[in-house]
Amino acid sequence: MFALALQERILQLNSRLCLGLDPRPEKHRSFEDLEVHTLEVLEACADTVACVKPQLAFFEALGLPGMALLERVCAQARALGLPVILDGKRGDIGSTAEAYARAWLGGAHAGSALTVNPYLGFETLLPFVHEARAQGGAVFVLVRTSNPGSGDLQNLEAGPARVAERVAREVARLGLEEGEGPSSVGAVVGATRPDELAHYRALMPQATLLLPGLGAQGADPAALAPAFLPGGVGAVVSASRGIQYADPQLSVRAAQQAAEGFRQALNAALAD
Amino acid sequence: MFALALQERILQLNSRLCLGLDPRPEKHRSFEDLEVHTLEVLEACADTVACVKPQLAFFEALGLPGMALLERVCAQARALGLPVILDGKRGDIGSTAEAYARAWLGGAHAGSALTVNPYLGFETLLPFVHEARAQGGAVFVLVRTSNPGSGDLQNLEAGPARVAERVAREVARLGLEEGEGPSSVGAVVGATRPDELAHYRALMPQATLLLPGLGAQGADPAALAPAFLPGGVGAVVSASRGIQYADPQLSVRAAQQAAEGFRQALNAALAD
Repeated sequence: MFALALQERILQLNSRLCLGLDPRPEKHRSFEDLEVHTLEVLEACADTVACVKPQLAFFEALGLPGMALLERVCAQARALGLPVILDGKRGDIGSTAEAYARAWLGGAHAGSALTVNPYLGFETLLPFVHEARAQGGAVFVLVRTSNPGSGDLQNLEAGPARVAERVAREVARLGLEEGEGPSSVGAVVGATRPDELAHYRALMPQATLLLPGLGAQGADPAALAPAFLPGGVGAVVSASRGIQYADPQLSVRAAQQAAEGFRQALNAALAD
Repeated sequence: MFALALQERILQLNSRLCLGLDPRPEKHRSFEDLEVHTLEVLEACADTVACVKPQLAFFEALGLPGMALLERVCAQARALGLPVILDGKRGDIGSTAEAYARAWLGGAHAGSALTVNPYLGFETLLPFVHEARAQGGAVFVLVRTSNPGSGDLQNLEAGPARVAERVAREVARLGLEEGEGPSSVGAVVGATRPDELAHYRALMPQATLLLPGLGAQGADPAALAPAFLPGGVGAVVSASRGIQYADPQLSVRAAQQAAEGFRQALNAALAD
């Protein structure tokens, strides 16, 4: 089960870092170079990171060869024992949501996690949640994102709660359906908003939190301790460009060292 | 430019129908049968529908062969002169949104339209809007969706306006940036909520509206006149299963006849 497997790796490797893979063609001389570099960075970081998060947008932007590379990345991650979070932010209604769930939480992706968007309503999360539960995977529901303008809708006050708080309560409710312990329904909460972390952590006690924003987006690892549960579990923090493209010369060793630096900075924050 | 090309086709063919393509493997004996049927339905309906809307979820659920089929569908639609709305409901931040925009509004998809999700904030719509404007394409922003539970977030009252109304006002603002006339920023408003159509039509006077919900979702064509602008332009109504799978025997002629029936029902509503 994704959430438990992730928790085990967090403790085993003493790492709360999620390796984001956003392969950017403008950084490479050819598609083949991009492919090799992406797979090498994944392998080099496998013992440093708790999980890996391929960003579907960057693979889609590479066309069919990109989608084939995504499958290779996922297969290699599975072979390395790394939990995979497919960052697709999918969301749709009825049988269309079921099709997305089959695509990214079933088949070869069984046991993986998918990020999902709640704008279409809470019922539209259910096909994803049901497939994740059936396949031992997980969903991460967008609650409060890391970008500067994320408050336009998420932070609107609607009666006694903000929009994002209502989503957080639904994440908590879905978690409770599974009994105690880590739930297959996680949440995305931006690492760039440290003042809100304790609040969202408390609203969703069983959810694994995915915190994007380390590295290029400038989140401070030292401020992220409130996102974690006692024992330093229950959350992972992702960096993408800041690892794969840490070095302008694209040294894979430099990428691994950047990951190791993030890993240690996150652990130092928890030790304080 | 997408919105003008669509308007021209609406008037030329006297059709406000959008052909949704949601290829379902359980309806076919093999992937090859699904492929042939999808392309034949597209060709058979080409003179009956104003545009075509492939639902990305169903192609993704078919894996790499599905993504290759999507490209064939889009190429055939272009060859037939049909405007294409890629129904992907994408949404992400910063350079990730740019990657999605390149993937689905650039390259071979230049001049096409993409459905986008506003939950991450209005700034996150801009990479899509800018790419659509640069390539002569369009975006359709999710405003008010057709599913029963769509009100969980969209209908929340946040100060003087509902969440969906705030999104509608941003769609209108982006349209105004382009001067008068049809804008490259359209909106999705469910055909299943006829009582709200006049309101959202008035909030977004320059936006082309995409109304899903005809056929399987049960929207009544007779109630949809308020979604249109004077002259019967400014909106298209989509049906998917109700066309491609109208006939249990998968007759392509029956699919074309179902499309013709929807086309006439929509025109009758406008004539009343």
